[in-house]
Amino acid sequence: MQYVELVAVLAVLQFLFFGVMTGKAREKYGVKAPSVAGHEGFERMYRVQMNTLEMLIVFMPVLFIAANYWSSVVVAGIGLVFVIGRFMYWRAYVTEPSKRGTGFMLTLIPSLVLIVLSVVGIVMSILEGQA
Amino acid sequence: MQYVELVAVLAVLQFLFFGVMTGKAREKYGVKAPSVAGHEGFERMYRVQMNTLEMLIVFMPVLFIAANYWSSVVVAGIGLVFVIGRFMYWRAYVTEPSKRGTGFMLTLIPSLVLIVLSVVGIVMSILEGQA
Amino acid sequence: MQYVELVAVLAVLQFLFFGVMTGKAREKYGVKAPSVAGHEGFERMYRVQMNTLEMLIVFMPVLFIAANYWSSVVVAGIGLVFVIGRFMYWRAYVTEPSKRGTGFMLTLIPSLVLIVLSVVGIVMSILEGQA
Repeated sequence: MQYVELVAVLAVLQFLFFGVMTGKAREKYGVKAPSVAGHEGFERMYRVQMNTLEMLIVFMPVLFIAANYWSSVVVAGIGLVFVIGRFMYWRAYVTEPSKRGTGFMLTLIPSLVLIVLSVVGIVMSILEGQA
Repeated sequence: MQYVELVAVLAVLQFLFFGVMTGKAREKYGVKAPSVAGHEGFERMYRVQMNTLEMLIVFMPVLFIAANYWSSVVVAGIGLVFVIGRFMYWRAYVTEPSKRGTGFMLTLIPSLVLIVLSVVGIVMSILEGQA
Repeated sequence: MQYVELVAVLAVLQFLFFGVMTGKAREKYGVKAPSVAGHEGFERMYRVQMNTLEMLIVFMPVLFIAANYWSSVVVAGIGLVFVIGRFMYWRAYVTEPSKRGTGFMLTLIPSLVLIVLSVVGIVMSILEGQA
């Protein structure tokens, strides 16, 4: 389970880093709090942060649920793809938003795989309990 | 615990579905990323997604904490009400926003019940440990 | 682990309370759903809620991961500082936004401490397993 926890901490650190970058973009593009609009440069970074928040609420539960049923090294590996995909998504969104698709897919697909692993693991475990 | 995990995965899948619908609304109403405003049709769907995100950060922890102290079938059942309530909230918000109250209450009340079950379970367990 | 769970429930209750205050600010300043802009009074409260959501997705996982490796009373104590910091952040943001720094640091620092405790705990546990 330690490798899965390590990936979870990595994902959380990445999200904090995106938060710092959003704060910097706020200053750089002169978007004063509490406003979250006004300059596309800031809005792109803010969307990276928000989209990552949306993906993390999916990723975190299924990362740990999947690890209850499958090899924690495999689950941690899938989680690592998520983190790498998020970095690609960030780089693309702030430079060339139209190219953010690859990074997005590399966070969506690992999440879907973890969901499938979770469901299969849970259902198999329920069926075994009844056998 | 498997039934509780199954409900957690269901809630996460529902949230992903809301994300897909927000993406579709973006295209349909011509709201270009990174903007999140400009057409009420899009803004309603976006609010469904964001409000669900806000509720999930409450729901997920107390779902699993409550399941540490009470019957996992009962806790999973309460969680299922949350998911059904979210579907009602979504249908109402995109068609008749003023009627979203029922669906909202059906996600708020299960969350509050899980909070109460968590607190009672924790406090009873602390008192037992000291007895 | 019960004290850690209690702090998690407390953080979740605080977030629900911020949600209620955002709803009240919506009415008070006449910002009609689905809009989330239009009056600074509302926007400040909304930012408190959103920033708390952003911090909770960091806080929740590392609170429980750290508690797997360290004294749950110590971890719960650090978590309590997070909750108190959030209250200070809220009070400052709605009255004098420029003074929200202290409250923010009192939620950021406990989160960073929990991250460090998690990483050290995980790495020590991996090394022990290989020894």
